[in-house]
Amino acid sequence: MDWKPRPFVTLTYAQSLDSMLAAAPGTRTAISGPSTKAMTHFLRSRHDAVLVGVGTAAADDPGLSCRLEVEMGGGHQPRPVVLDPFARWDVTRDSRAVRLAREGRGLGPWVLHMDRLTPARDRARAVEDVGGRYLAVGLTEWVAEEGEGGAPAGTRYSMTWDSILGALWDEGINSVMVEGGGTVINDLLLLADKGLDVVDSVIVTIAPLWLGSGGVAVAPERENPAGADDDEARAPGPRLTDVTWTQMGDDMVLCGRIMR
Amino acid sequence: MDWKPRPFVTLTYAQSLDSMLAAAPGTRTAISGPSTKAMTHFLRSRHDAVLVGVGTAAADDPGLSCRLEVEMGGGHQPRPVVLDPFARWDVTRDSRAVRLAREGRGLGPWVLHMDRLTPARDRARAVEDVGGRYLAVGLTEWVAEEGEGGAPAGTRYSMTWDSILGALWDEGINSVMVEGGGTVINDLLLLADKGLDVVDSVIVTIAPLWLGSGGVAVAPERENPAGADDDEARAPGPRLTDVTWTQMGDDMVLCGRIMR
Repeated sequence: MDWKPRPFVTLTYAQSLDSMLAAAPGTRTAISGPSTKAMTHFLRSRHDAVLVGVGTAAADDPGLSCRLEVEMGGGHQPRPVVLDPFARWDVTRDSRAVRLAREGRGLGPWVLHMDRLTPARDRARAVEDVGGRYLAVGLTEWVAEEGEGGAPAGTRYSMTWDSILGALWDEGINSVMVEGGGTVINDLLLLADKGLDVVDSVIVTIAPLWLGSGGVAVAPERENPAGADDDEARAPGPRLTDVTWTQMGDDMVLCGRIMR
Repeated sequence: MDWKPRPFVTLTYAQSLDSMLAAAPGTRTAISGPSTKAMTHFLRSRHDAVLVGVGTAAADDPGLSCRLEVEMGGGHQPRPVVLDPFARWDVTRDSRAVRLAREGRGLGPWVLHMDRLTPARDRARAVEDVGGRYLAVGLTEWVAEEGEGGAPAGTRYSMTWDSILGALWDEGINSVMVEGGGTVINDLLLLADKGLDVVDSVIVTIAPLWLGSGGVAVAPERENPAGADDDEARAPGPRLTDVTWTQMGDDMVLCGRIMR
């Protein structure tokens, strides 16, 4: 793959001991305490953009703004970015990120979708009214082998992280903080596991509780192709290096870089 | 349930960030660094018994002894206990725990099985030769409702933690360190989630790596019976209190008590 310029990527999320982001899909679960929430807002003040997947946008209706800067009388706000390939986020003028932008307490959200489709008119207007926009991302063509469930072999198109981060870079975003949800995080960790260089910094908050099976879990998908020998199945996944652990209240915050 | 005397129970294990104990079932994965291994041996020196499930006994062939005490010229050794309801652990004179006992570097293992079945003669001899034994645990009778997969309603029998810990108590065990594996840990966390008082202390080592999907995960089973409302599905599971976090090398060790 050719190297393309891209923003600095910080992957950050809060999890339970059993690696859950939420107790059930489509719901929001309070996991971390107040100190780590303050850290999140600090980090938002240090990044050009904050990115979440459409599942998180729909389930949490997040503001994705920096409260600290507002409290300190303005200053830098990160650009809220929603990764929404099929433009299915039902954004309205009442969505929290839109409302905050209208009140001058955040920037209008950008919604990244696949080109070749046109977002619904009312959704586009909702974000454009507050200085946001729908941003088409070019698709990458690739050839799939016959897949699980008998999916036919053939040409496929997808939004790759290369194209997503490239599009943000082209729009002047030098740093992006990826905050979730499960699909986005697992996708980035999978790429890291494959040795691809897409995540620069990882910040994980771990709270001392369990959410239990049936929740939204972080665990990078591991392929176990027929013919993989035992050693391959047993090999660990990505590991962090330059590790620091910082206690915040009862929670622990782990920072590191993915080892190459 | 009547309160019965039982040993002090310490639940301890090492996990990846994604809450995996091993990269694949039936295999052993190196997760934590050397300092936390030393802690494990220190903890073993402070407990009367060390308990693992039969899956771990089969996959890891663990010694379950305390190396520190050997290095310091003898002293207290914990009793290795294997939880093996159907007496299927293929223990021989070459099993590590048996070998250590023969060499005077550990105690002969106890194998806890359901009464009503007789362990294979050669297995019984292997542990008895080094001062270990098979210990029958009485079954608890309970009435099951119709279960998943159409399992019929009716009377069932099982080894409960009440009977397991009661049997250990009756044999003079005042403290037991439960080291795994996944089935045993999830079972104890499930009971804790139900508010049952079976675990006194929890010590979890977290290493800064991911093992990925398909591994042996710690995540207490959560019931979501038909009719449970959303709030129930969203409720978090057990939480730790009196929390301390201690960094050891790149790993983090979390100690706490389960909140009631």
